[in-house]
Amino acid sequence: MGSAAATPPPGGKPTQDELKRAAAHRAVELVEPGMTLGLGTGSTAAHALDRLGDLLRAGALPGVAGVPTSLKTEAHAARVGIPLLSLGGGPDMKIHLSIDGADEVDPDLNLVKGRGGSLLREKMIEGAGDRFVVIVDESKLVPRLGCTGAIPVEVVPFGARHTLGLIREVFDGLPGFHARLREGSEDAPFVTDNGNYIVEMFFEDGIRGDLRDISDRLLRITGVVEHGMFLRMATTVIVANKDGTVAVINKK
Amino acid sequence: MGSAAATPPPGGKPTQDELKRAAAHRAVELVEPGMTLGLGTGSTAAHALDRLGDLLRAGALPGVAGVPTSLKTEAHAARVGIPLLSLGGGPDMKIHLSIDGADEVDPDLNLVKGRGGSLLREKMIEGAGDRFVVIVDESKLVPRLGCTGAIPVEVVPFGARHTLGLIREVFDGLPGFHARLREGSEDAPFVTDNGNYIVEMFFEDGIRGDLRDISDRLLRITGVVEHGMFLRMATTVIVANKDGTVAVINKK
Repeated sequence: MGSAAATPPPGGKPTQDELKRAAAHRAVELVEPGMTLGLGTGSTAAHALDRLGDLLRAGALPGVAGVPTSLKTEAHAARVGIPLLSLGGGPDMKIHLSIDGADEVDPDLNLVKGRGGSLLREKMIEGAGDRFVVIVDESKLVPRLGCTGAIPVEVVPFGARHTLGLIREVFDGLPGFHARLREGSEDAPFVTDNGNYIVEMFFEDGIRGDLRDISDRLLRITGVVEHGMFLRMATTVIVANKDGTVAVINKK
Repeated sequence: MGSAAATPPPGGKPTQDELKRAAAHRAVELVEPGMTLGLGTGSTAAHALDRLGDLLRAGALPGVAGVPTSLKTEAHAARVGIPLLSLGGGPDMKIHLSIDGADEVDPDLNLVKGRGGSLLREKMIEGAGDRFVVIVDESKLVPRLGCTGAIPVEVVPFGARHTLGLIREVFDGLPGFHARLREGSEDAPFVTDNGNYIVEMFFEDGIRGDLRDISDRLLRITGVVEHGMFLRMATTVIVANKDGTVAVINKK
């Protein structure tokens, strides 16, 4: 049973990596033979890839294939033996279940994702499936999105500083708000898988207000491609708690 | 006077190119010394560039500079001697007036632009300015957007066929609607200045409904970067009519 991984070692508290693995293994229990999966990116999702690879090699999940959300995940999945498909691979292709980590989860199961720099492909693939299972350790549960770090926004490189100015205008006058272009190496902007830049938005105590309305206002800005708020997309959140228990929260 | 160009040659009707030039020259009359201009792209906007170059060389418009909406316009403007700036060139930079053509203009001065493959940079620059003057011959006036050809949508290459499917869902069941990926050379998709693809949407008798709502629904699709409907952005439309007259329509 995958959930056995949730048990802390005798006499000790589980490490954060053990918690991530516990949540990942619990999610993989939802996978059934024949499913096409959206494969997430990041340290938590990597545990799910390893577990899937083990089960596939043991012959436990015949007919399972995956759609990777990043080049890194594509390489990892290939290495552990998960057959791969591309999004839009055919008119009848269907993603049954996606499994991925998140940077933050709020009480309505809205997410912040993309602090690692990948959000567009994840949003596309995870939004395309029937079910989206998010796997986190309890440190990711927040009262409001943006409490523990940046909310990223992917922008077109052309006019990026102008676009940054328009993003600032959406939150004009909000105390503690600031935004900046994410830096990459050698003072150049960070570049995404899609050749775009990332604007990082910071909120003093998390983002407040109607998130769907804020989403629309961001998306209406001409240079904005996508943002890292995943609103009402998660259907299940699996949380590994520090006490070794694993909670499964389903969307209402 | 630029408007003299609107006069048809003795005994003949003006050609479409003469009409375009007439509208362009009338627009350039709005330019004042010291202005920073958004410089459009296409055959009509090219006449405005030529006229601006003539006036600059004659010393009539000191302090005028331009922000080009495409690489082609950048090259043309440089050739005729218009000093150039980049969008976001500085915190105090301000675009006073943009001049550009359009593929279609509806009665509310909403536009279709981008059939030539350039829309994102135009939308960014023309949306950034105080005034946006559109120059067309009367063949571009339509009762509804999408009456005379495609409405383009710029999409991220990753998952483009999936995104195409989601765009089709927005207009699901609408008689006569179809959409396709625009082809470039050798059966490969057409690629924009920003490295993206174009989905072309076709409507049997133009697009109907609340255009702002339709715009939001398109922009919410994860792979959509921008679309070619320029809603309530034009502040003035200058129309060169076949009878040689030039009409100036201001936004209400």
